[in-house]
Amino acid sequence: MAARTVSILGSTGSVGESTLDLLEQAGADVEMIALTGGRNVARLAEQAKRWRPRQVVIEDESLLPELRERLNGSNIGASAGAAAICEAAAIGAEWVMSSIVGSAGLAPTLAAARAGSVIALANKESLICAGPALLATAREAGGGVIPVDSEHSAIFQVLQPACRDRVSRLILTASGGPFRGWSLDEMRGASVEQAVAHPKWSMGRKISVDSAQMMNKGLEMIEASYLFDMPSNQIDVLIHPQSVVHSLVEYADGSTLAQLGEPDMRTPIACAWSWPDRIAWPAPRLDLAVVGQLTFEAPDEIRFPALAIAREALNAGGGAPAAMNAANEVGVAAFLDRRIGFLDIAALVAETLEELTGGGDLTQDSNADPLEWAMSIDMGARRTAAQVLSRFEGRG
Amino acid sequence: MAARTVSILGSTGSVGESTLDLLEQAGADVEMIALTGGRNVARLAEQAKRWRPRQVVIEDESLLPELRERLNGSNIGASAGAAAICEAAAIGAEWVMSSIVGSAGLAPTLAAARAGSVIALANKESLICAGPALLATAREAGGGVIPVDSEHSAIFQVLQPACRDRVSRLILTASGGPFRGWSLDEMRGASVEQAVAHPKWSMGRKISVDSAQMMNKGLEMIEASYLFDMPSNQIDVLIHPQSVVHSLVEYADGSTLAQLGEPDMRTPIACAWSWPDRIAWPAPRLDLAVVGQLTFEAPDEIRFPALAIAREALNAGGGAPAAMNAANEVGVAAFLDRRIGFLDIAALVAETLEELTGGGDLTQDSNADPLEWAMSIDMGARRTAAQVLSRFEGRG
Repeated sequence: MAARTVSILGSTGSVGESTLDLLEQAGADVEMIALTGGRNVARLAEQAKRWRPRQVVIEDESLLPELRERLNGSNIGASAGAAAICEAAAIGAEWVMSSIVGSAGLAPTLAAARAGSVIALANKESLICAGPALLATAREAGGGVIPVDSEHSAIFQVLQPACRDRVSRLILTASGGPFRGWSLDEMRGASVEQAVAHPKWSMGRKISVDSAQMMNKGLEMIEASYLFDMPSNQIDVLIHPQSVVHSLVEYADGSTLAQLGEPDMRTPIACAWSWPDRIAWPAPRLDLAVVGQLTFEAPDEIRFPALAIAREALNAGGGAPAAMNAANEVGVAAFLDRRIGFLDIAALVAETLEELTGGGDLTQDSNADPLEWAMSIDMGARRTAAQVLSRFEGRG
Repeated sequence: MAARTVSILGSTGSVGESTLDLLEQAGADVEMIALTGGRNVARLAEQAKRWRPRQVVIEDESLLPELRERLNGSNIGASAGAAAICEAAAIGAEWVMSSIVGSAGLAPTLAAARAGSVIALANKESLICAGPALLATAREAGGGVIPVDSEHSAIFQVLQPACRDRVSRLILTASGGPFRGWSLDEMRGASVEQAVAHPKWSMGRKISVDSAQMMNKGLEMIEASYLFDMPSNQIDVLIHPQSVVHSLVEYADGSTLAQLGEPDMRTPIACAWSWPDRIAWPAPRLDLAVVGQLTFEAPDEIRFPALAIAREALNAGGGAPAAMNAANEVGVAAFLDRRIGFLDIAALVAETLEELTGGGDLTQDSNADPLEWAMSIDMGARRTAAQVLSRFEGRG
């Protein structure tokens, strides 16, 4: 069998590195088409020398000379900038890992979808901001989208295609974050340091705050709704602090199927790589007798309003999820800058959405280019959120 | 679509009743071919009046006049005896529930397999005593076997056909029984009353004792090995007292898939009915937030030697599993009669197997009729077990 053509968008980030590590460990037969990175030019050049892609792209254009220098004599094409990343994504590798962090991942992911690639999707913004368009584009072009996020990968693995209309609920598990047991009053006074101290993983500050306010689960609920074509009232969140059960699917016949595993990104990546088959690699092995105990509790949407806000944004449809995501980024940044309190983040998101939906600004124009439309929603929401923020600060 | 032709072998037992209840609740479109019962003639006649089968059979021939009396004027054919049950099974309904308890289920299940039916299999003896022959027969005749036991149904549901050779382990969960926390010394003195007091379910006495000594899991390990074509060293047992996770499949890529649910037989029956689709019925809904906690521990094969004995019987192959099953029935009956102690059951099984394998009596003759061969193994093992028993009693 011929080697599989592969591109990794965001190869120097944590998911990109895990992907390359997995392909290495599984002894996968790979013809690398493109590797793209943001600013870590040294690591990108190392990866390029190991994997010999046709093209290597650094987003930060000022680093192109250094990249060329490091690849000198290697015969590997080097380029730079966001447009070059999209061009690389558009080459149409059979399998594309979309692991650029943030909204910068949106355009290249859509480009890969148009090219008919099978997309292993780790970039959340592509779904939140342009989920339906991305999935329709991928389907029409003959490719597909396989989620890499551990929760969605779990659902993907146990959502049996033959039984889709017998699914009664998707159940997203959530660690509950550092404020799981906190009262609203305690959360009101929560410091930045407390909010970023996740009990289980060391993550970036933005993601840690999202986890503390459970906005990460709100975003995942929206992603799940798009990925699996499920309405919000059939998607539940379940607190599960041990994070061993990665998510579940409940069927109308009383069976609930779940995927469990050690917290290692390489397992969902392996699944996205080999689906509908699986591959062997020296994976960490879950031993439930060693884990000993799994606990579960219902989430409290009063203490964690982000869940209800996300559900409402999902129900509102159109640009509401994208706007929610943008407003949340503004709110989290303001909290990290100590300009607003922890609970103000969700309040700011809710007020922003209220203003925007009242103004009818979030209705989708079906003729609009999905990327441009998502970007305009995003910018509009950031503007409105900034106004709401200044009112919040005026109050404080 | 035409109604599906159905037969229920053992319709008045607990699994049979659950099957009819499920078909009723799911509004299944059924053309009933045969209902067969053991001795509960009143219930069998009621079921026959409701489901209008072509044939109704009572095993106990002395009850045939009463059955005819009760069905008087209904135009339903009635017959009696083990041979009549086999004839009914051989009619070749599209779907056959094999839920006769004990070795009496073996011949009718093989008859249904030969007729090319899809068999929902609840009768354990068919697998233990003639598993490979049953499965090969069903396959050759164009039918199949879908397990109904909750553990095997769980594995069946998450064992993805495309990934069979990527399975690293089947993990059978076990409640651990009433003696889970007991020392060997305490178990040595265990009374019949203590052994039949299962912490979670009210079951028959034989099955309760099997659960107390974990021989039920030993038997299930053998069934799983046959059903899923897996060697004994890839089948593990995991103690899980809450019995919510019904069993798991571990894959080589680090994913472990599981089926969970409330303890209701109708869910695995529904799965066997509709596979590869699923059906909706008012199933009890698992709420993990209400369950709250799931615990797991490794089984102790020193305190529960039945597990190791079953593994050895499986590895020995041939008639060893059937002989083990027969010797265990002799041992459990002697314990229930207070002729031997609780730990003597496993010791008796081990000694019986040792004698039989030493004598080479368990080697399979590939030309033999599987039913006759299984019966001869069974009878030989019972004879040997009786001799071992008398030695045990002589000692005591």
